[in-house]
Amino acid sequence: MSPGPLHTFGELLTAARSDSPPRMAVAAAAESAVIDAATHAMRERLVRPIFIGSCDRIRRLADEMQISLDDVELIEAPDPVVASALAVRLVYEGQADLVMKGLVRTKNFVRAVLNHEFGLRRGRAMSHVGVFESPDRSRLMLLTDSGINIRPRFSRKVEIVRNAVELAHALGIAEPKVAVIAAVETVELPTMPATLDAELLRRMGQAGHFGPCIVDGPLAMDNALDARTAEVKGRGSPVAGHADIIVVPEIETGNAVYKTIRYLAGRDLAGLLVGATGPVVVTSRSDSPESKLYSIALGALMSRA
Amino acid sequence: MSPGPLHTFGELLTAARSDSPPRMAVAAAAESAVIDAATHAMRERLVRPIFIGSCDRIRRLADEMQISLDDVELIEAPDPVVASALAVRLVYEGQADLVMKGLVRTKNFVRAVLNHEFGLRRGRAMSHVGVFESPDRSRLMLLTDSGINIRPRFSRKVEIVRNAVELAHALGIAEPKVAVIAAVETVELPTMPATLDAELLRRMGQAGHFGPCIVDGPLAMDNALDARTAEVKGRGSPVAGHADIIVVPEIETGNAVYKTIRYLAGRDLAGLLVGATGPVVVTSRSDSPESKLYSIALGALMSRA
Repeated sequence: MSPGPLHTFGELLTAARSDSPPRMAVAAAAESAVIDAATHAMRERLVRPIFIGSCDRIRRLADEMQISLDDVELIEAPDPVVASALAVRLVYEGQADLVMKGLVRTKNFVRAVLNHEFGLRRGRAMSHVGVFESPDRSRLMLLTDSGINIRPRFSRKVEIVRNAVELAHALGIAEPKVAVIAAVETVELPTMPATLDAELLRRMGQAGHFGPCIVDGPLAMDNALDARTAEVKGRGSPVAGHADIIVVPEIETGNAVYKTIRYLAGRDLAGLLVGATGPVVVTSRSDSPESKLYSIALGALMSRA
Repeated sequence: MSPGPLHTFGELLTAARSDSPPRMAVAAAAESAVIDAATHAMRERLVRPIFIGSCDRIRRLADEMQISLDDVELIEAPDPVVASALAVRLVYEGQADLVMKGLVRTKNFVRAVLNHEFGLRRGRAMSHVGVFESPDRSRLMLLTDSGINIRPRFSRKVEIVRNAVELAHALGIAEPKVAVIAAVETVELPTMPATLDAELLRRMGQAGHFGPCIVDGPLAMDNALDARTAEVKGRGSPVAGHADIIVVPEIETGNAVYKTIRYLAGRDLAGLLVGATGPVVVTSRSDSPESKLYSIALGALMSRA
């Protein structure tokens, strides 16, 4: 039974709430912002957290914030690298359903996620997906990749699209519309190789390579975001103005757009690492409490997909 | 006498108004949106337009829109390429102070601007600068280059920064703070060459190469846009959170950010081509009437700098 697409973060929270929430292993949990976010999500019935780190320090921090840890499982592992390995292993062994990064360097955390022995590899690249509400707040939109893949070559872009389409399906978007972004709307070689990648991704989409979805590109960002521009420009694309997924050519674009949405449009974003065998939640210190909650909700929902 | 920095588009309009406005040559003016924007700017006392194109067609279109051309000079040149050359030549010969693109392909228009015989070359690359109001609308911010230079190498980036600093000075920003954007805040080689360019531009700024300004980089977009993030991240930069100029690494980033500001943040942007001997106004069909007015005001102001 598909619940139909989720249109807002509010609907995302509702859909992710559960009477038996998924178990979330938190690697290196001894940081107040992490404890706050994870227990907030627990009270919202999004996840059952398992805190891995220095238990003493976790208890002291929780105490200072007057947060109860009664329903939280604690596992002692003061070293962040060891804590990351343990957290990932819990998911690998089926004792947790998703994993969240705490006070550990992203590099070390991702290394644990990808380790060959008990990591969450799936024979596919991992990528970051940011989720935000569309300009008119009528639907959720996905932005990828703004965090992991620096300058992905074509084969990697294929996996990035596949990962995002999978997440869109988990969000109830039956046939996501994928806009592959460039600075222009036509293939320009040799000056703009991103436009050729976009054209090729479009063809692969047409050939059914990504399953149920509609891929179009190259599209400039206005065409992806704005239905009226799409009309004026006369691109005649089913994706233009109605994109569910925005695929950027490299990390500089993704990162800058993500942060423009956050700090200039003043919008919340949720984020998730996808492409592994389980959802991986990575929040940033500067994320708002709402953003962190939405990110965990996204992971929780994805863990059930 | 410097009027101090302009903080908003409203202040920009006020500063650009004049009792003897600069003369703006409009290349291939026979398009209703162009006629509308230029005569609107004329009524606002920003410019005195000179329309170059098919005079019959210009008159008919103005008639349909009930716009008076009494104070507009008309020059017959039905061919858009010829009209562009004529418009540029007027600036070259000192009979106009700035030039605006009408219904002519950007490529052909820019070719006219850059022609060797009577073009507006200045021994320096041209670049596009977008102007928008800061997140809290407390100041004008510049974004460059989102329209001309595709993947500028370092020497070109130097000219892009110089062009933007010059425009910032014309806007009354005595010592503009320049944020050179990357996806991260440290130099990462060989994976992220944009970070090295940013570091080198910072050093050139320190050495006084760009005149009065403060250059910092690499900075991620949140650090450029948001003072609180800058504090949390502890970058300790005078530019972080207070950037006047945002320099992006390549056109994909600039273009996508520009359009995210426009279509997701719902903000107006003004745009200008700089680096020539006179300001070059290029508006897009999908720009709002306000944006077009601000762009012309920017050109008018720059023509007096």
